[in-house]
Amino acid sequence: MDTYEKSLMLHEKYKGKISTISKLPILDKETLSLAYTPGVARASEMIHENPDDVYKYTFKSNTVAIVSDGSAVLGLGNIGAKAAIPVMEGKALLFKEFAGIDAFPICIDSNDVEEIVRTCRLIAPVFGGINLEDISAPRCFEIEERLKSELDIPVFHDDQHGTAIVVLAALTNSLKVVKKKKEDIKIVVNGAGAAGTAITKFLFSENYSDIILCDSKGIISKKRTDLNPIKNKLLEITNKASITGSLKDALKHADVFIGVSVGNIVTSDMIKTMNIKPIIFALANPTPEIMPNDAKQGGAFIIATGRSDFSNQINNVLGFPGIFRGALNVRASDINNEMKKEASYALAKIVESPSQDCIIPSVFDKNVVKHVSEAVESAARKTKVSRI
Amino acid sequence: MDTYEKSLMLHEKYKGKISTISKLPILDKETLSLAYTPGVARASEMIHENPDDVYKYTFKSNTVAIVSDGSAVLGLGNIGAKAAIPVMEGKALLFKEFAGIDAFPICIDSNDVEEIVRTCRLIAPVFGGINLEDISAPRCFEIEERLKSELDIPVFHDDQHGTAIVVLAALTNSLKVVKKKKEDIKIVVNGAGAAGTAITKFLFSENYSDIILCDSKGIISKKRTDLNPIKNKLLEITNKASITGSLKDALKHADVFIGVSVGNIVTSDMIKTMNIKPIIFALANPTPEIMPNDAKQGGAFIIATGRSDFSNQINNVLGFPGIFRGALNVRASDINNEMKKEASYALAKIVESPSQDCIIPSVFDKNVVKHVSEAVESAARKTKVSRI
Repeated sequence: MDTYEKSLMLHEKYKGKISTISKLPILDKETLSLAYTPGVARASEMIHENPDDVYKYTFKSNTVAIVSDGSAVLGLGNIGAKAAIPVMEGKALLFKEFAGIDAFPICIDSNDVEEIVRTCRLIAPVFGGINLEDISAPRCFEIEERLKSELDIPVFHDDQHGTAIVVLAALTNSLKVVKKKKEDIKIVVNGAGAAGTAITKFLFSENYSDIILCDSKGIISKKRTDLNPIKNKLLEITNKASITGSLKDALKHADVFIGVSVGNIVTSDMIKTMNIKPIIFALANPTPEIMPNDAKQGGAFIIATGRSDFSNQINNVLGFPGIFRGALNVRASDINNEMKKEASYALAKIVESPSQDCIIPSVFDKNVVKHVSEAVESAARKTKVSRI
Repeated sequence: MDTYEKSLMLHEKYKGKISTISKLPILDKETLSLAYTPGVARASEMIHENPDDVYKYTFKSNTVAIVSDGSAVLGLGNIGAKAAIPVMEGKALLFKEFAGIDAFPICIDSNDVEEIVRTCRLIAPVFGGINLEDISAPRCFEIEERLKSELDIPVFHDDQHGTAIVVLAALTNSLKVVKKKKEDIKIVVNGAGAAGTAITKFLFSENYSDIILCDSKGIISKKRTDLNPIKNKLLEITNKASITGSLKDALKHADVFIGVSVGNIVTSDMIKTMNIKPIIFALANPTPEIMPNDAKQGGAFIIATGRSDFSNQINNVLGFPGIFRGALNVRASDINNEMKKEASYALAKIVESPSQDCIIPSVFDKNVVKHVSEAVESAARKTKVSRI
């Protein structure tokens, strides 16, 4: 039986992967009167008088909504709200297992930006943060931006920023291994959706200035007439030499390939045209842009994928649990760039001596959530978005 | 320290009363690949192909949303979404403790009917049922009606129907004790909000035909010029003799008083004017319409309250856990009148020999959820709203 069949059996056996529990067993009338009426009225009165007390007397302080409209689920496309639930439950389970956070799936039965924004705004009282998940580009950008400005709790689209944070950490350590400087390298990002866009922006903000971004039509350049406004805007920070052509053309003399696109689109011959000691992050799931063995044949020096069955797994679970843990710990009103950067630096530093096969910690390394959350807390305080 | 202070301490200690848990501990890469990517993709694909599989592979089959806008919370009025959270968490805890249901509070930051309906509709994919809670009348009627017609999962406003179901059961047993027939008795319902309206309609549908309904202004009669359309419509099934006046006037020669209003508005003198062996359900919380001792002084033969510190506690927790348990068990598309009636009959029958001090089972009687859920399941099958 393969992973998919085993997984399906598991889902059927448990009928879902998360459950709610009561923190207080109700054994008698006394506990009932404390947890519910009449006693509970006092907590409600206190919050009514001072809304901030909601963090003191309710589960808001530790609760995150995982919001998706099911429009870009894994590699499956727009499969809708119901079909997104197993993934969002899985994410909730990771929040709990890795960071002790009570996360709950909110799968919205609409792809309309206004409806998604309004729904999040209206259900926000219960949540200490919102993790946007698997919402397709370019709508995801507007939804996140709107919610960040309208809500006083952190809103974080993990497909964008979570990926960018982990990629930056892996790249930082990779450059140590190949002994190159960020000023000297050329990076090709393939995939201009949520992840590719966020990676590009994040790397640029970290002074990686030579980035070529490709989408399914090839290099994003000024010559292209089919670009949406968001891709057009990315030309301000990418492709300074204004080159045109395909992904193959882009990879010539590149130092780093970062794929957040689809499987099997890079060949070992393409890698042979890259600069010395090529770094290959083939992150498409479940099939990478190039399989590690083929990449090695092409001369790749460092190879990372999103998969758990190869070394160097670049997985968002290295990011979001610690990031939200840190944000919730200080009741942050936002997860800003400074917090994202510090999360990435902390993640990179966990690997004391990076090597070809170890540029990023294991997802089971207990230090990950601890160090990432501490870095996020400290950055939140420094940028004054912490509220305790 | 009184109940309120103890309760507040408890809320602060636990920072909320419910939590999410993972049903599957993630111990290694293998379980991670089954619970999350890549394995989870198969469950999503299956649901995409056949939306009904959402009940097979996700937690929807056992999950209920507790939806409130915080507009009528306990006796506290319109205290808003945040201040409603402790109550909704308490309710979630009762769902879990009494019926093993995973319930989650959704507190909506709007009192607008359209916004509440739209939000419920958009977040419905995740839930197997919706429990509306503490939404003020008359908006609660329209919200429930709209959602019942728009959604394929059961929608149940507990303040209305839960209360009516438990009251009918208590009344059924009370009449056995006082040896009166429903055809012969006059009932006064005080309070024309969500609960009073639903009790009146439910009793009428059970052939209790002599009901006087009062609101804060007195008897609802044709002479009144201040009635909203819903109260006006209730005249079709109440006050056939077209009497006018105050609650005091209504109670003369009445057999039953059902209060779902405010504390301390009935006196022992008023009870003295009622028929022989008066039945008093003084359900206002936390202060009943008349305290049991005063009612007894007035000659009350059976006295019930909503409180746990007196005998005959008429509490919704006798209803909703079993009702939703039954509805979820058969994947009901609705909780219809037949199911409500059977729930009430089952609840009444649990007390084999009703007596003055025992007209209704204890909330801790394990038979309650078992018998109520079985009755609801069976009625759902009979009325063809069950889907398994």
